[in-house]
Amino acid sequence: MGGTKIAGALVDARGELLVRAQRPTPAREDGATVMDAVAGVLETLAASDDWARVRAVGIGSAGPVDASRGTVSPVNVPGWRGYPLVAEVARRVAGRPVTLVGDGVAMTAAEHWQGAARGRANALCMVVSTGVGGGLVLGGRLHTGPTGNAGHIGHISVDLDGDTCPCGARGCVERIASGPNIARRALDAGWRPGPDGDRSAAAVAAAARGGDAVALASFERAAQALAAGIAATATLVEIEVAVIGGGVAGAGEILFAPLRARLRDYATLSFAAGVEVLPARLGADAGLVGAAAAAAQDIGLWQVPEAP
Amino acid sequence: MGGTKIAGALVDARGELLVRAQRPTPAREDGATVMDAVAGVLETLAASDDWARVRAVGIGSAGPVDASRGTVSPVNVPGWRGYPLVAEVARRVAGRPVTLVGDGVAMTAAEHWQGAARGRANALCMVVSTGVGGGLVLGGRLHTGPTGNAGHIGHISVDLDGDTCPCGARGCVERIASGPNIARRALDAGWRPGPDGDRSAAAVAAAARGGDAVALASFERAAQALAAGIAATATLVEIEVAVIGGGVAGAGEILFAPLRARLRDYATLSFAAGVEVLPARLGADAGLVGAAAAAAQDIGLWQVPEAP
Repeated sequence: MGGTKIAGALVDARGELLVRAQRPTPAREDGATVMDAVAGVLETLAASDDWARVRAVGIGSAGPVDASRGTVSPVNVPGWRGYPLVAEVARRVAGRPVTLVGDGVAMTAAEHWQGAARGRANALCMVVSTGVGGGLVLGGRLHTGPTGNAGHIGHISVDLDGDTCPCGARGCVERIASGPNIARRALDAGWRPGPDGDRSAAAVAAAARGGDAVALASFERAAQALAAGIAATATLVEIEVAVIGGGVAGAGEILFAPLRARLRDYATLSFAAGVEVLPARLGADAGLVGAAAAAAQDIGLWQVPEAP
Repeated sequence: MGGTKIAGALVDARGELLVRAQRPTPAREDGATVMDAVAGVLETLAASDDWARVRAVGIGSAGPVDASRGTVSPVNVPGWRGYPLVAEVARRVAGRPVTLVGDGVAMTAAEHWQGAARGRANALCMVVSTGVGGGLVLGGRLHTGPTGNAGHIGHISVDLDGDTCPCGARGCVERIASGPNIARRALDAGWRPGPDGDRSAAAVAAAARGGDAVALASFERAAQALAAGIAATATLVEIEVAVIGGGVAGAGEILFAPLRARLRDYATLSFAAGVEVLPARLGADAGLVGAAAAAAQDIGLWQVPEAP
C-alpha cells in the first residue's frame, strides 16, 4: 500500500508471484474511496483458482502504521488517518489471518527470505530513495516491534545540532542521505543540471561519475550519514550485514565506496567493526514478497530457511 | 568482573543474594593471576551449603566480551585479551552451564527482572557513569546479540562531525554524556570546583543545583546527547521505556528534567514519542542479580515474570 499504487499478489511458499493485481492509489480522495481501490485489488486476486490455497494475508504499508491497532496513516494518503485497514481487509478475505507491517519491514522480510540478507541471522535492510526506510532481522527473525515500525533508520539523528527534519527532529539520516537531500545539497553548493534539466539524485550521481567534485561531495556526505546510522544499528543490536536498496543505491560505487570507507570510521567496536554492506537483490516486487513472508512468519507457517 | 573488583554471589529464584564473595581485581598483573582471583571467589561460593543447588553460572564482564567465543578483553585488565573466561570458569563449576554477557546487558537483565523495567516487553537500560553502557529487552527477552554486546548505546554517534572518542569514532553518546565529559565541559567553559577541589560530575551537579549556569549547561548538553541516543533506539527497535542508572543519574532532575524535554525533540515519530525515562531501581548489586538472570534465561530455567 503506497501513495502511488496499491499492488497485490498471490505468493507461493517459494516466493513466486502467481497472480498480480494493481490499482493507482486515489490518494487525494476520501478514505472509503481509497479502500474501494484496495477491495478491487483483493477481488482480482480472489477470482484466481489459487485463492482457495491462501493461508494468510500480509500488508506492507507506507507509514506510519500501527500493527498493534491494525491501523495505517500513510503520509501521502490524507484520507487515511488511523484507518482500520486490517479490519477492512480481514472482512474481505474470509477470516484468514491478516498481518500488517511497515513498508521498510516488508522489504526486509523479502531480502531475508530471497535476497541479499538470506541466511543472515542479524541484518538491517534499508531503502534509500525519496525517503530512507528500513527494517531489522534479529536472531533469525523479522523484528517488527509492537507497532510494526522497527528499523526506521531514516529518522535517527546522527547530527544532533543539524538541520531540522520534516519529522521535527534534527540531523536525521534521511535529512542528509535521501535522494532529494543529495540533490539539494549539490545544487546549494553550485552543481548545475545538464541541458535536460534533470535535478534528481540520479543526475547528481551521473555528474559524480564524470568527476564533478561537488556532486561527489554530496554523495560522500550522504554516505557519511548512512555509515553513522548503520554503525549505530550494529552497535545497538549487533548486525552482520546492512543491505541497501532504493533509487539512491542505484548510484552504485559512487555511494557504496565512500559508505564502506566511512563505516570503518564509525563502526569501531570489535563486535560492530565487521558489518558488511551489500546492495539489495530484489527490486520492485520486494514489498509483495516481503508482506507475504511477514504474514507467514507471524502465523508460524514456516521458518525462513537458512542459506544453503 | 570489573577493573576494580571481582564480585560473585549465589542468587536464588527470587533474586535474593544468599552468599557473597569478592576480591580486588589484580588488574595490572598477568592473566593467570587475575584468574586466580576469580577462582578464589568461586571457591568461597562453592564452600556454601547452597552450592549443590546451583543450576547455572552467569558472568557479567566489563567489555569488550565475545559470548560466541566465550572470551573477554576488559579494557582495564590488560592481562586479559581474548581471555577464555567461560572455559576457565566452566572447569571450576563441575560442568554447570556458563553464560557470558557484557556488564550493560547484565544490569539490564536485573532491571527487567527486579527493577524499573519490570513487566516491560521492550526496554533500554543504561549506566551513565565513567562510561556509558547499556542493554536491551526486546519482545520480553534480554537481547544480548551473538557476542553478548548488544545495547552499547555509549558508542553510537549522535554528532557525526563531533569530537573524537577514544573508541575511534566521533560524537559518541559517551563522549558527550559520561561523567568525566560533563566535568571536562564545565571546566572548559569556566566552572571552577569549590574549596574541596572536587572536579567530578557530582560536584558539577551540586553547582547546577545551586543555579550555576555553566554547570547547568553541561548537564543539558549531556541530556541532549542521551535524548538523541534514546530516541534513536526507540526509532530503531521500538522501546517503551529507558531506564538510567549509574553515578551521573544520581544528579536526579538536573539530568532527568532536560533529558525528558529533549527527548520530545528527537523522539518524534508516533511509535517512538511515548518512550518513558525512569531512574534505575537496583544499585550496586545489579550486575550480580543480572548475571544470574541472564544465565537462567539462557538455559530456559525460567521466564522473567510479568509485572503484577
